[in-house]
Amino acid sequence: MDVLVPLAIDEPKTRLAGTLTSAERAAFARTACADVLDSIRESGHDPTVLATGAVEVDAPVRVDDRPLTEAVNAALEAAFDSDAERVGIVMADLALATPAALGRLFDADGDVVLAPGRGGGTNAVVAGHPQFRTDYHGASIRDHREAARAVGADVTEIDSFRLATDVDEPADLVEVLLHGEGRAREWLVEAGFEVTTADGRATVTRAQE
Amino acid sequence: MDVLVPLAIDEPKTRLAGTLTSAERAAFARTACADVLDSIRESGHDPTVLATGAVEVDAPVRVDDRPLTEAVNAALEAAFDSDAERVGIVMADLALATPAALGRLFDADGDVVLAPGRGGGTNAVVAGHPQFRTDYHGASIRDHREAARAVGADVTEIDSFRLATDVDEPADLVEVLLHGEGRAREWLVEAGFEVTTADGRATVTRAQE
Repeated sequence: MDVLVPLAIDEPKTRLAGTLTSAERAAFARTACADVLDSIRESGHDPTVLATGAVEVDAPVRVDDRPLTEAVNAALEAAFDSDAERVGIVMADLALATPAALGRLFDADGDVVLAPGRGGGTNAVVAGHPQFRTDYHGASIRDHREAARAVGADVTEIDSFRLATDVDEPADLVEVLLHGEGRAREWLVEAGFEVTTADGRATVTRAQE
Repeated sequence: MDVLVPLAIDEPKTRLAGTLTSAERAAFARTACADVLDSIRESGHDPTVLATGAVEVDAPVRVDDRPLTEAVNAALEAAFDSDAERVGIVMADLALATPAALGRLFDADGDVVLAPGRGGGTNAVVAGHPQFRTDYHGASIRDHREAARAVGADVTEIDSFRLATDVDEPADLVEVLLHGEGRAREWLVEAGFEVTTADGRATVTRAQE
Protein backbone atom coordinates (compact mmCIF):
# COMPACT_ATOMS: atom_id res chain seq x y z
CA MET A 1 0.00 0.00 0.00
CA ASP A 2 1.20 3.54 -0.69
CA VAL A 3 1.38 5.54 2.53
CA LEU A 4 1.49 9.34 2.61
CA VAL A 5 3.54 10.89 5.41
CA PRO A 6 2.72 14.61 5.70
CA LEU A 7 5.69 16.66 6.89
CA ALA A 8 5.75 20.42 7.60
CA ILE A 9 9.09 21.91 6.58
CA ASP A 10 8.96 25.50 7.85
CA GLU A 11 8.90 26.01 11.60
CA PRO A 12 7.69 22.56 12.56
CA LYS A 13 6.61 21.74 16.13
CA THR A 14 6.04 25.32 17.29
CA ARG A 15 4.48 24.09 20.53
CA LEU A 16 7.92 22.78 21.49
CA ALA A 17 9.39 26.28 21.08
CA GLY A 18 10.04 26.75 24.82
CA THR A 19 11.89 23.44 24.95
CA LEU A 20 13.87 23.17 21.71
CA THR A 21 15.44 25.82 19.47
CA SER A 22 14.12 26.26 15.95
CA ALA A 23 17.02 24.25 14.50
CA GLU A 24 16.52 21.52 17.11
CA ARG A 25 12.82 21.31 16.38
CA ALA A 26 13.57 20.82 12.69
CA ALA A 27 16.21 18.18 13.44
CA PHE A 28 13.97 16.33 15.89
CA ALA A 29 11.04 16.42 13.44
CA ARG A 30 13.23 14.93 10.67
CA THR A 31 14.49 12.24 13.01
CA ALA A 32 10.98 11.25 14.09
CA CYS A 33 9.96 11.23 10.41
CA ALA A 34 12.87 8.93 9.54
CA ASP A 35 11.70 6.52 12.27
CA VAL A 36 8.17 6.59 10.87
CA LEU A 37 9.42 5.90 7.33
CA ASP A 38 11.46 2.93 8.57
CA SER A 39 8.51 1.51 10.49
CA ILE A 40 6.20 1.83 7.47
CA ARG A 41 8.72 -0.01 5.27
CA GLU A 42 9.28 -2.69 7.92
CA SER A 43 5.54 -3.25 8.05
CA GLY A 44 5.71 -3.99 4.29
CA HIS A 45 4.38 -0.76 2.78
CA ASP A 46 5.68 2.13 0.67
CA PRO A 47 5.95 5.59 2.21
CA THR A 48 5.90 8.86 0.26
CA VAL A 49 6.65 12.06 2.15
CA LEU A 50 4.06 14.74 1.44
CA ALA A 51 6.12 17.83 2.24
CA THR A 52 5.26 21.51 2.28
CA GLY A 53 8.57 22.20 0.48
CA ALA A 54 11.67 20.53 -0.93
CA VAL A 55 13.31 18.23 1.61
CA GLU A 56 15.88 15.45 1.63
CA VAL A 57 14.47 12.33 3.19
CA ASP A 58 14.92 8.63 2.61
CA ALA A 59 11.71 8.23 0.57
CA PRO A 60 10.02 9.69 -2.51
CA VAL A 61 8.75 13.24 -1.89
CA ARG A 62 5.59 14.88 -3.19
CA VAL A 63 5.68 18.65 -2.61
CA ASP A 64 2.45 20.52 -1.92
CA ASP A 65 2.57 23.81 -0.04
CA ARG A 66 -1.13 23.97 0.67
CA PRO A 67 -2.52 23.36 4.16
CA LEU A 68 -2.54 19.76 5.39
CA THR A 69 -6.14 18.88 4.55
CA GLU A 70 -5.99 20.20 0.99
CA ALA A 71 -2.61 18.60 0.28
CA VAL A 72 -3.69 15.20 1.63
CA ASN A 73 -6.99 15.25 -0.24
CA ALA A 74 -5.27 16.14 -3.53
CA ALA A 75 -2.88 13.23 -3.02
CA LEU A 76 -5.78 10.89 -2.17
CA GLU A 77 -7.62 11.98 -5.31
CA ALA A 78 -4.53 11.41 -7.45
CA ALA A 79 -4.06 7.96 -5.93
CA PHE A 80 -7.66 6.85 -6.47
CA ASP A 81 -7.54 8.26 -10.02
CA SER A 82 -4.56 5.96 -10.56
CA ASP A 83 -6.66 3.01 -9.38
CA ALA A 84 -5.27 2.71 -5.86
CA GLU A 85 -7.57 0.60 -3.70
CA ARG A 86 -6.32 1.67 -0.29
CA VAL A 87 -4.08 4.58 0.67
CA GLY A 88 -2.45 5.13 4.06
CA ILE A 89 -1.84 8.49 5.74
CA VAL A 90 0.50 8.46 8.74
CA MET A 91 1.66 11.59 10.54
CA ALA A 92 5.41 12.18 10.56
CA ASP A 93 5.57 12.89 14.29
CA LEU A 94 4.46 9.47 15.54
CA ALA A 95 7.81 8.81 17.20
CA LEU A 96 6.42 5.79 19.07
CA ALA A 97 5.09 4.03 15.97
CA THR A 98 6.46 0.53 15.52
CA PRO A 99 6.02 -1.88 12.60
CA ALA A 100 3.66 -3.89 14.83
CA ALA A 101 1.46 -0.89 15.66
CA LEU A 102 1.36 0.19 12.02
CA GLY A 103 0.69 -3.39 10.96
CA ARG A 104 -2.51 -3.38 13.03
CA LEU A 105 -3.54 -0.21 11.15
CA PHE A 106 -2.66 -1.42 7.66
CA ASP A 107 -4.10 -4.93 8.14
CA ALA A 108 -7.41 -3.82 9.64
CA ASP A 109 -10.65 -4.40 7.78
CA GLY A 110 -13.00 -1.51 7.12
CA ASP A 111 -13.54 0.93 4.26
CA VAL A 112 -11.93 3.59 6.43
CA VAL A 113 -9.51 2.80 9.25
CA LEU A 114 -8.78 5.54 11.79
CA ALA A 115 -6.14 5.77 14.53
CA PRO A 116 -7.22 8.50 16.95
CA GLY A 117 -4.65 10.89 18.33
CA ARG A 118 -4.75 12.57 21.71
CA GLY A 119 -6.98 15.60 21.97
CA GLY A 120 -9.32 14.65 19.14
CA GLY A 121 -6.74 14.29 16.38
CA THR A 122 -6.49 11.61 13.73
CA ASN A 123 -2.93 10.36 13.61
CA ALA A 124 -3.25 7.70 10.95
CA VAL A 125 -5.81 6.68 8.34
CA VAL A 126 -6.30 3.98 5.77
CA ALA A 127 -8.67 5.28 3.11
CA GLY A 128 -10.21 2.38 1.25
CA HIS A 129 -13.23 4.21 -0.14
CA PRO A 130 -12.61 6.45 -3.17
CA GLN A 131 -14.98 9.19 -1.94
CA PHE A 132 -13.52 9.53 1.55
CA ARG A 133 -11.67 12.80 2.15
CA THR A 134 -9.87 14.12 5.22
CA ASP A 135 -10.49 17.21 7.33
CA TYR A 136 -7.78 17.83 9.88
CA HIS A 137 -9.27 20.96 11.42
CA GLY A 138 -10.69 20.83 14.96
CA ALA A 139 -11.56 17.51 16.58
CA SER A 140 -10.83 15.65 13.38
CA ILE A 141 -11.58 12.15 14.68
CA ARG A 142 -15.23 13.14 15.04
CA ASP A 143 -15.29 14.72 11.58
CA HIS A 144 -13.60 11.68 10.01
CA ARG A 145 -16.15 9.32 11.54
CA GLU A 146 -18.88 11.53 10.10
CA ALA A 147 -17.16 11.90 6.70
CA ALA A 148 -16.93 8.13 6.39
CA ARG A 149 -20.58 7.71 7.31
CA ALA A 150 -21.56 10.37 4.76
CA VAL A 151 -20.07 8.34 1.89
CA GLY A 152 -21.39 5.01 3.19
CA ALA A 153 -17.99 3.74 4.31
CA ASP A 154 -17.73 1.55 7.39
CA VAL A 155 -15.15 2.61 9.97
CA THR A 156 -12.69 0.64 12.06
CA GLU A 157 -10.79 2.40 14.85
CA ILE A 158 -7.37 1.21 15.99
CA ASP A 159 -6.83 1.30 19.74
CA SER A 160 -3.10 2.10 19.94
CA PHE A 161 -1.21 4.24 22.44
CA ARG A 162 1.75 4.31 20.05
CA LEU A 163 -0.34 5.68 17.20
CA ALA A 164 -2.26 8.04 19.52
CA THR A 165 0.94 9.71 20.69
CA ASP A 166 1.95 12.49 18.31
CA VAL A 167 4.81 14.55 19.67
CA ASP A 168 3.58 18.12 19.83
CA GLU A 169 4.05 19.36 23.37
CA PRO A 170 6.87 19.18 25.93
CA ALA A 171 4.92 16.62 27.98
CA ASP A 172 4.92 14.29 24.97
CA LEU A 173 8.71 13.99 25.02
CA VAL A 174 8.58 11.79 28.10
CA GLU A 175 6.60 9.22 26.11
CA VAL A 176 9.42 9.08 23.54
CA LEU A 177 11.99 8.56 26.29
CA LEU A 178 9.95 5.83 27.99
CA HIS A 179 8.54 3.99 24.97
CA GLY A 180 10.46 5.06 21.84
CA GLU A 181 12.45 2.38 20.03
CA GLY A 182 14.08 4.47 17.31
CA ARG A 183 16.38 7.36 16.60
CA ALA A 184 14.04 10.03 17.95
CA ARG A 185 14.57 8.60 21.43
CA GLU A 186 18.34 8.53 20.90
CA TRP A 187 18.20 12.13 19.69
CA LEU A 188 16.49 13.24 22.91
CA VAL A 189 18.93 11.31 25.09
CA GLU A 190 21.88 12.85 23.24
CA ALA A 191 20.31 16.29 23.62
CA GLY A 192 20.36 15.78 27.39
CA PHE A 193 16.71 14.98 28.10
CA GLU A 194 15.79 12.64 30.88
CA VAL A 195 12.68 11.45 32.69
CA THR A 196 11.73 13.36 35.85
CA THR A 197 9.10 12.30 38.32
CA ALA A 198 7.32 14.24 41.01
CA ASP A 199 3.60 14.19 41.80
CA GLY A 200 1.41 13.21 38.89
CA ARG A 201 2.68 12.26 35.47
CA ALA A 202 6.35 12.01 34.66
CA THR A 203 7.86 14.72 32.48
CA VAL A 204 11.30 15.61 31.13
CA THR A 205 14.16 17.82 32.21
CA ARG A 206 17.21 18.74 30.19
CA ALA A 207 20.74 18.61 31.56
CA GLN A 208 22.54 21.96 31.51
CA GLU A 209 25.49 21.98 29.12
CA MET B 1 -9.24 -14.34 36.58
CA ASP B 2 -9.66 -12.20 39.70
CA VAL B 3 -9.06 -8.55 38.90
CA LEU B 4 -8.27 -5.94 41.55
CA VAL B 5 -9.63 -2.45 40.92
CA PRO B 6 -7.93 0.04 43.28
CA LEU B 7 -10.23 2.93 44.21
CA ALA B 8 -9.34 5.93 46.38
CA ILE B 9 -12.34 6.98 48.49
CA ASP B 10 -11.25 10.25 50.16
CA GLU B 11 -10.72 13.25 47.90
CA PRO B 12 -10.24 11.35 44.66
CA LYS B 13 -9.04 13.09 41.49
CA THR B 14 -7.55 16.16 43.17
CA ARG B 15 -5.99 17.28 39.88
CA LEU B 16 -9.53 17.89 38.62
CA ALA B 17 -10.19 20.27 41.53
CA GLY B 18 -10.33 23.37 39.31
CA THR B 19 -12.86 21.70 37.04
CA LEU B 20 -15.17 19.67 39.32
CA THR B 21 -16.30 20.21 42.91
CA SER B 22 -15.26 17.70 45.54
CA ALA B 23 -18.68 16.02 45.41
CA GLU B 24 -18.57 15.94 41.61
CA ARG B 25 -15.11 14.42 41.60
CA ALA B 26 -16.31 11.64 43.89
CA ALA B 27 -19.40 11.03 41.74
CA PHE B 28 -17.41 11.03 38.52
CA ALA B 29 -14.80 8.66 39.99
CA ARG B 30 -17.54 6.23 41.09
CA THR B 31 -19.14 6.38 37.67
CA ALA B 32 -15.87 5.68 35.87
CA CYS B 33 -15.25 2.82 38.31
CA ALA B 34 -18.69 1.35 37.57
CA ASP B 35 -17.85 1.41 33.84
CA VAL B 36 -14.55 -0.35 34.50
CA LEU B 37 -16.27 -3.03 36.61
CA ASP B 38 -18.80 -3.64 33.84
CA SER B 39 -16.09 -3.92 31.20
CA ILE B 40 -14.09 -6.38 33.29
CA ARG B 41 -17.16 -8.57 33.76
CA GLU B 42 -18.07 -8.35 30.07
CA SER B 43 -14.56 -9.50 29.22
CA GLY B 44 -15.26 -12.61 31.31
CA HIS B 45 -13.39 -11.86 34.53
CA ASP B 46 -14.19 -11.14 38.19
CA PRO B 47 -13.50 -7.69 39.62
CA THR B 48 -12.88 -6.91 43.29
CA VAL B 49 -12.69 -3.27 44.32
CA LEU B 50 -9.63 -2.59 46.47
CA ALA B 51 -10.84 0.49 48.31
CA THR B 52 -9.15 2.76 50.82
CA GLY B 53 -12.37 2.73 52.88
CA ALA B 54 -15.88 1.33 52.97
CA VAL B 55 -17.76 1.97 49.75
CA GLU B 56 -20.89 0.73 48.01
CA VAL B 57 -20.08 -0.56 44.56
CA ASP B 58 -21.45 -3.33 42.40
CA ALA B 59 -18.63 -5.77 43.19
CA PRO B 60 -16.95 -7.39 46.20
CA VAL B 61 -14.84 -4.88 48.19
CA ARG B 62 -11.53 -5.43 49.94
CA VAL B 63 -10.70 -2.50 52.24
CA ASP B 64 -7.07 -1.52 52.77
CA ASP B 65 -6.25 2.03 53.82
CA ARG B 66 -2.54 1.78 53.06
CA PRO B 67 -1.00 3.55 50.07
CA LEU B 68 -1.68 2.02 46.63
CA THR B 69 1.52 0.00 46.23
CA GLU B 70 1.32 -1.61 49.67
CA ALA B 71 -2.39 -2.40 49.36
CA VAL B 72 -2.00 -3.94 45.90
CA ASN B 73 1.02 -5.99 46.91
CA ALA B 74 -0.76 -7.34 49.99
CA ALA B 75 -3.70 -8.36 47.82
CA LEU B 76 -1.35 -9.98 45.28
CA GLU B 77 0.36 -11.92 48.05
CA ALA B 78 -2.96 -13.11 49.44
CA ALA B 79 -4.07 -14.21 45.98
CA PHE B 80 -0.89 -16.17 45.21
CA ASP B 81 -1.04 -17.72 48.70
CA SER B 82 -4.52 -18.94 47.73
CA ASP B 83 -3.05 -20.54 44.59
CA ALA B 84 -4.11 -17.90 42.07
CA GLU B 85 -2.17 -18.32 38.83
CA ARG B 86 -2.79 -14.90 37.35
CA VAL B 87 -4.17 -11.77 38.97
CA GLY B 88 -5.28 -8.62 37.17
CA ILE B 89 -4.94 -5.05 38.44
CA VAL B 90 -6.91 -2.40 36.56
CA MET B 91 -7.12 1.23 37.65
CA ALA B 92 -10.62 2.49 38.43
CA ASP B 93 -10.23 5.67 36.34
CA LEU B 94 -9.84 4.02 32.94
CA ALA B 95 -13.06 5.53 31.66
CA LEU B 96 -12.24 4.54 28.07
CA ALA B 97 -11.66 0.86 28.84
CA THR B 98 -13.85 -1.46 26.79
CA PRO B 99 -14.26 -5.24 27.07
CA ALA B 100 -12.22 -5.53 23.84
CA ALA B 101 -9.31 -3.46 25.18
CA LEU B 102 -9.34 -5.35 28.49
CA GLY B 103 -9.62 -8.64 26.61
CA ARG B 104 -6.32 -7.91 24.87
CA LEU B 105 -4.77 -7.38 28.33
CA PHE B 106 -6.25 -10.45 29.98
CA ASP B 107 -5.62 -12.76 27.01
CA ALA B 108 -2.00 -11.73 26.42
CA ASP B 109 0.80 -14.19 26.98
CA GLY B 110 3.68 -13.29 29.26
CA ASP B 111 4.48 -13.82 32.94
CA VAL B 112 3.76 -10.16 33.48
CA VAL B 113 1.52 -8.10 31.19
CA LEU B 114 1.69 -4.31 31.45
CA ALA B 115 -0.53 -1.61 29.96
CA PRO B 116 1.39 1.68 30.12
CA GLY B 117 -0.41 4.84 31.11
CA ARG B 118 0.41 8.33 29.96
CA GLY B 119 3.31 10.02 31.70
CA GLY B 120 5.06 6.83 32.76
CA GLY B 121 2.21 5.24 34.68
CA THR B 122 1.08 1.62 34.65
CA ASN B 123 -2.66 1.53 34.19
CA ALA B 124 -3.23 -2.20 34.11
CA VAL B 125 -1.26 -5.32 34.95
CA VAL B 126 -1.66 -9.04 34.77
CA ALA B 127 0.66 -10.62 37.31
CA GLY B 128 1.30 -14.24 36.39
CA HIS B 129 4.51 -14.71 38.36
CA PRO B 130 4.11 -15.23 42.14
CA GLN B 131 7.16 -13.09 43.00
CA PHE B 132 6.18 -10.04 40.96
CA ARG B 133 5.21 -7.00 43.03
CA THR B 134 4.09 -3.54 42.02
CA ASP B 135 5.61 -0.13 42.70
CA TYR B 136 3.37 2.73 41.64
CA HIS B 137 5.70 5.56 42.64
CA GLY B 138 7.40 7.63 39.95
CA ALA B 139 7.63 6.40 36.36
CA SER B 140 6.17 3.05 37.34
CA ILE B 141 6.23 1.49 33.87
CA ARG B 142 10.02 1.55 33.97
CA ASP B 143 10.10 0.11 37.48
CA HIS B 144 7.61 -2.62 36.60
CA ARG B 145 9.69 -3.69 33.58
CA GLU B 146 12.70 -3.88 35.89
CA ALA B 147 10.78 -5.65 38.68
CA ALA B 148 9.65 -8.32 36.24
CA ARG B 149 13.18 -8.80 34.94
CA ALA B 150 14.48 -9.07 38.51
CA VAL B 151 12.28 -12.12 39.22
CA GLY B 152 12.93 -13.71 35.81
CA ALA B 153 9.44 -12.96 34.45
CA ASP B 154 9.00 -12.16 30.78
CA VAL B 155 7.01 -9.04 30.00
CA THR B 156 4.37 -8.27 27.39
CA GLU B 157 3.22 -4.69 26.90
CA ILE B 158 -0.25 -3.88 25.59
CA ASP B 159 -0.38 -1.03 23.10
CA SER B 160 -3.78 0.51 23.88
CA PHE B 161 -4.86 4.15 23.86
CA ARG B 162 -7.96 3.16 25.86
CA LEU B 163 -5.90 1.57 28.62
CA ALA B 164 -3.27 4.35 28.49
CA THR B 165 -5.87 7.02 29.19
CA ASP B 166 -6.43 7.40 32.91
CA VAL B 167 -8.58 10.39 33.73
CA ASP B 168 -6.55 12.60 36.04
CA GLU B 169 -6.37 16.05 34.50
CA PRO B 170 -8.88 18.40 32.87
CA ALA B 171 -7.39 17.71 29.42
CA ASP B 172 -8.22 14.02 29.86
CA LEU B 173 -11.96 14.74 29.99
CA VAL B 174 -12.04 15.43 26.26
CA GLU B 175 -10.92 11.86 25.62
CA VAL B 176 -13.92 10.60 27.59
CA LEU B 177 -16.27 12.80 25.56
CA LEU B 178 -14.75 11.71 22.24
CA HIS B 179 -14.12 8.01 22.89
CA GLY B 180 -16.04 6.95 25.99
CA GLU B 181 -18.76 4.36 25.57
CA GLY B 182 -20.12 4.20 29.11
CA ARG B 183 -21.75 6.14 31.89
CA ALA B 184 -18.73 8.33 32.62
CA ARG B 185 -19.22 9.96 29.22
CA GLU B 186 -22.94 10.42 29.91
CA TRP B 187 -22.10 11.91 33.30
CA LEU B 188 -19.86 14.55 31.69
CA VAL B 189 -22.46 15.38 29.04
CA GLU B 190 -25.15 15.77 31.70
CA ALA B 191 -22.78 17.97 33.72
CA GLY B 192 -22.58 20.30 30.74
CA PHE B 193 -19.17 19.45 29.33
CA GLU B 194 -18.55 19.65 25.63
CA VAL B 195 -15.64 19.43 23.23
CA THR B 196 -13.97 22.71 22.30
CA THR B 197 -11.42 23.17 19.57
CA ALA B 198 -8.98 25.96 18.92
CA ASP B 199 -5.32 25.61 17.95
CA GLY B 200 -3.71 22.38 19.04
CA ARG B 201 -5.50 19.60 20.89
CA ALA B 202 -9.19 19.74 21.64
CA THR B 203 -10.24 20.33 25.22
CA VAL B 204 -13.49 20.76 27.14
CA THR B 205 -15.64 23.65 28.23
CA ARG B 206 -18.58 23.54 30.60
CA ALA B 207 -21.88 25.23 29.90
CA GLN B 208 -22.87 27.84 32.49
CA GLU B 209 -25.93 26.85 34.45
